[in-house]
Amino acid sequence: MLGYFGPAGTFTHQALMTFSDAEAVPFATVSQALDAVRAGSVEAVLVPIENSVEGGVSVTLDALSAGRRLMIVREVLLPVQFNLYARPGTRLEDVRKVVTHPHSAAQTREWMASHLPQASVTEGGSNAASALEVSDPGSRFDAAICGEIAGEMYGLEAIATGIADNASAVTRFVLVSRPAEPPRRTGHDKTTLVAFMQTDRAGALLEILEQFSGRGVSLSRIESRPTKTGMGNYCFSIDAEGHLRDPRLAEAMQGLHRICEDVIFLGSYPRADGVDAHVPRGFADSDFAAAKDWYTSLVHPGDE
Amino acid sequence: MLGYFGPAGTFTHQALMTFSDAEAVPFATVSQALDAVRAGSVEAVLVPIENSVEGGVSVTLDALSAGRRLMIVREVLLPVQFNLYARPGTRLEDVRKVVTHPHSAAQTREWMASHLPQASVTEGGSNAASALEVSDPGSRFDAAICGEIAGEMYGLEAIATGIADNASAVTRFVLVSRPAEPPRRTGHDKTTLVAFMQTDRAGALLEILEQFSGRGVSLSRIESRPTKTGMGNYCFSIDAEGHLRDPRLAEAMQGLHRICEDVIFLGSYPRADGVDAHVPRGFADSDFAAAKDWYTSLVHPGDE
Amino acid sequence: MLGYFGPAGTFTHQALMTFSDAEAVPFATVSQALDAVRAGSVEAVLVPIENSVEGGVSVTLDALSAGRRLMIVREVLLPVQFNLYARPGTRLEDVRKVVTHPHSAAQTREWMASHLPQASVTEGGSNAASALEVSDPGSRFDAAICGEIAGEMYGLEAIATGIADNASAVTRFVLVSRPAEPPRRTGHDKTTLVAFMQTDRAGALLEILEQFSGRGVSLSRIESRPTKTGMGNYCFSIDAEGHLRDPRLAEAMQGLHRICEDVIFLGSYPRADGVDAHVPRGFADSDFAAAKDWYTSLVHPGDE
Amino acid sequence: MLGYFGPAGTFTHQALMTFSDAEAVPFATVSQALDAVRAGSVEAVLVPIENSVEGGVSVTLDALSAGRRLMIVREVLLPVQFNLYARPGTRLEDVRKVVTHPHSAAQTREWMASHLPQASVTEGGSNAASALEVSDPGSRFDAAICGEIAGEMYGLEAIATGIADNASAVTRFVLVSRPAEPPRRTGHDKTTLVAFMQTDRAGALLEILEQFSGRGVSLSRIESRPTKTGMGNYCFSIDAEGHLRDPRLAEAMQGLHRICEDVIFLGSYPRADGVDAHVPRGFADSDFAAAKDWYTSLVHPGDE
Repeated sequence: MLGYFGPAGTFTHQALMTFSDAEAVPFATVSQALDAVRAGSVEAVLVPIENSVEGGVSVTLDALSAGRRLMIVREVLLPVQFNLYARPGTRLEDVRKVVTHPHSAAQTREWMASHLPQASVTEGGSNAASALEVSDPGSRFDAAICGEIAGEMYGLEAIATGIADNASAVTRFVLVSRPAEPPRRTGHDKTTLVAFMQTDRAGALLEILEQFSGRGVSLSRIESRPTKTGMGNYCFSIDAEGHLRDPRLAEAMQGLHRICEDVIFLGSYPRADGVDAHVPRGFADSDFAAAKDWYTSLVHPGDE
Repeated sequence: MLGYFGPAGTFTHQALMTFSDAEAVPFATVSQALDAVRAGSVEAVLVPIENSVEGGVSVTLDALSAGRRLMIVREVLLPVQFNLYARPGTRLEDVRKVVTHPHSAAQTREWMASHLPQASVTEGGSNAASALEVSDPGSRFDAAICGEIAGEMYGLEAIATGIADNASAVTRFVLVSRPAEPPRRTGHDKTTLVAFMQTDRAGALLEILEQFSGRGVSLSRIESRPTKTGMGNYCFSIDAEGHLRDPRLAEAMQGLHRICEDVIFLGSYPRADGVDAHVPRGFADSDFAAAKDWYTSLVHPGDE
Repeated sequence: MLGYFGPAGTFTHQALMTFSDAEAVPFATVSQALDAVRAGSVEAVLVPIENSVEGGVSVTLDALSAGRRLMIVREVLLPVQFNLYARPGTRLEDVRKVVTHPHSAAQTREWMASHLPQASVTEGGSNAASALEVSDPGSRFDAAICGEIAGEMYGLEAIATGIADNASAVTRFVLVSRPAEPPRRTGHDKTTLVAFMQTDRAGALLEILEQFSGRGVSLSRIESRPTKTGMGNYCFSIDAEGHLRDPRLAEAMQGLHRICEDVIFLGSYPRADGVDAHVPRGFADSDFAAAKDWYTSLVHPGDE
Repeated sequence: MLGYFGPAGTFTHQALMTFSDAEAVPFATVSQALDAVRAGSVEAVLVPIENSVEGGVSVTLDALSAGRRLMIVREVLLPVQFNLYARPGTRLEDVRKVVTHPHSAAQTREWMASHLPQASVTEGGSNAASALEVSDPGSRFDAAICGEIAGEMYGLEAIATGIADNASAVTRFVLVSRPAEPPRRTGHDKTTLVAFMQTDRAGALLEILEQFSGRGVSLSRIESRPTKTGMGNYCFSIDAEGHLRDPRLAEAMQGLHRICEDVIFLGSYPRADGVDAHVPRGFADSDFAAAKDWYTSLVHPGDE
């Protein structure tokens, strides 16, 4: 059984349906979804991790790096489309009070300001919860900003469509399970790590980046998060190109382990966009194998 | 006239009162507060920028780097204390529905889960708006999580105090004005910049960091933010130790300007904690002056 | 009046004649030649500094960085051709004792071993001095290894020609004068520096290199030389692409000055091969000017 | 049977006697000594590799990196003391013509210039060969600059002692054998390598240095040598702190192999000064072992 950050009708739900049509359990918060995996009550859950407009989803980043270890096994990319949904019969010019998730509010701010300047936007829970709220005839809200699946699920009517300020916005979701042997290498993989820097180490972030650049590994995302132990203490949530079993990543990860206070491995999995990793000259598997053979021949010259 | 992220009673209001007791204007959103400065209707506004537990305040970071230039002229640090406030007469065990700002919800999650497991927490606008909401006898909420100033301002009663999961949490606020000549050097200054990396430049973040490390400048904060132009395109919001007029920072900033798509200067101002900048050997003002004198003597040997 | 590392007939003499046919003074040693410039008895002298086979000419590198400052104003490249010269009438098969400069001996070792295995090679002073020695009918040497000019000057006969092991060997010479304003920029310049590292600074060489790479400056030569103060203490003799007045080199040199125990500027002068400097994106004069303008506009916003 | 760079009486001979009193074979040149090891006619030979005043011994550096592989198994440090030796009865004030090895000439230049300004110094073969030459009553030389062992061996008389310009000069010698399993780790080891950079790789030297610095390995010597394939093409002769079997060096060497055109391993052997290697935090054997264990536990989570 799979789960997802719900309720039914969220973009996460929509993303889940792109690869599974089995029944799945919605969870009210990302934390609850991840805890259900930890407890074993579901096999895996889908949660949002990053948005091309709003950035990392802090609650997901933080919940993944605290508590019992979890592992990302898949990623899904979903274009984000926002509509304005109201109870049937509502006219656009009558809308005064709108509710939506803070990220959705942020991504439609300009459209709202220019098309509905008289409306106030309240930040509520999920988009779907906002749609549910509006579907209640006694609700103090006139409309909800949400995606198609949520609007239709709760019987609302789209009174404006395509209202995202940035039409090309994309959200990235990850499917999270308990730790296991990672999915096999495909050549277009991504590895997610959290590195906790040693706070008394000058230039710690530079050193962290050098672990990757020095082994020919590109990063596709890096975000600092406070470690909650004091202003200025960070950990870094990192997506690196490549798979745990790529020798260049294997060496980079071990290098990271040596210089960091702690490193959390959150999984190696295929990239949703299927783009092959760029491997600079000198960092292919064959280069690592040749270097190892050479080294071995020096340590044991008799075996040549 | 000063303004702040309101309504009256927010932590931001509380932070403002630590350095000014003149009347000040509350604004409903950070964006509106900053736009009022841009429009000249207030001289400067105080807004939250970073929390030791929740990280950077995305809306502030994004609003500072978009639109007409603004400038940070002061920072304020405020310990964050949360209480649970309800209408007089409410008993703790009767609380079922709680409202608060998402950051406040995040910072009291554990306390709520262990002390009020039966209560649901709804994420509303600001802490003060939540207190205001609860003060309405007809409110569907029983209690608000907020600071002392907000609770008292709206006539509520603290039914639980000190409920933050992390007792040492601190929020950092910045006073933002229109661009002008920055405050003078104090020796314990901080400079805030936003660097937009060239997307086709391999190792762009590493190069950005080297602009600072190569001139002996330490960073106290670095956060990646999406540029909203596509997944994987970032800008970096950076707090560097030192003042625009420190030669090591002057050179680092110009180096940054050369390798970046764009750089936004958001101000040089005294550090709230008053700690002097650490200047490594070779990067003091006198070292820069000596190097310049030497260089000049080579270009114009006759002037020696 | 110019001087050169003599006697008449050396490769240095030959190199001098490529750009000057005025009378010039030979000096017995590189040190004496440079001291004559310091003393003002000649205007400038030509000395060998580097050979594509034998490497840097240690005595020149050391003499340039000790004593009163000098300045390189020109470089000359000369292909190196060796012949075997003997007194007229000598047959190749009778040659038993050969004399030449140590560098010439090194560059003809293989030819001698395969063609004249019975001959012993003695390392003498210059090639020309060797030719002079052989021209004495009473000499204990049968032949000298030297260039055409020396062989003919002393009336010897070439009994074998083109005997260099490496047919493409090239020697580089520099014209050295007293310090003055360097020759003007040509766009294909070279700058010679000596950097003395701080011996207690970990990674000092890495830091030295970063001063250049961080400003887009390529190096065409780097050689370590002992500082003569103890095993393991080095200075680095460096040729950098570019001119003292190129802003990227100006900044790199000042950076070097800040982190080094000492830096000696030995001149900016046109490259003999006329190849334009490679300037990476972000490091052109215009990039430096734009960065400076931007910075100035921040310090003095009123002047915009 | 051991061999050495002779003839009998050289500093190399003196250095050999510090650890072996067995009979040993002198060779006329460093190349001949190393070729005798390659041919198997001697077990190992001692040759000079570096002098604290004159720098690397080019002929040794070049001969070690060309031809069939060899391996350094021991190093010896010897303080360098020069005396002026003449045939018995010669008076200091009568000395006009002096012969010695070029390095010895270089290291006594100042003393000679101030005490024997009227004497000319001819650069001959070894110090011992110079002493032998002077011992011939028919020699055209009056005196030789050499060490005590050479002077006494050829029946000469010291007419001036301690004439080195730098009283603390030290020469380093290495004992070279055919490749075999290197001497075991002592904790105070040195590893000698030659790295041939890829000529079309920008910043190749910087990358080479980063292979070491990124793994916490310090370098005690680095010298560029031309590869004899054209001006500006270098290889780097490097002494790194540590032993082939130290994991930090094992990884650095493999990293070097991947980015270089070629790498030559010339041996791991105990440091003559017995100083333990400095191992920065994070680079001890135990750090490498812990990182490897962690990585293995991720690849095979079932084995935990």
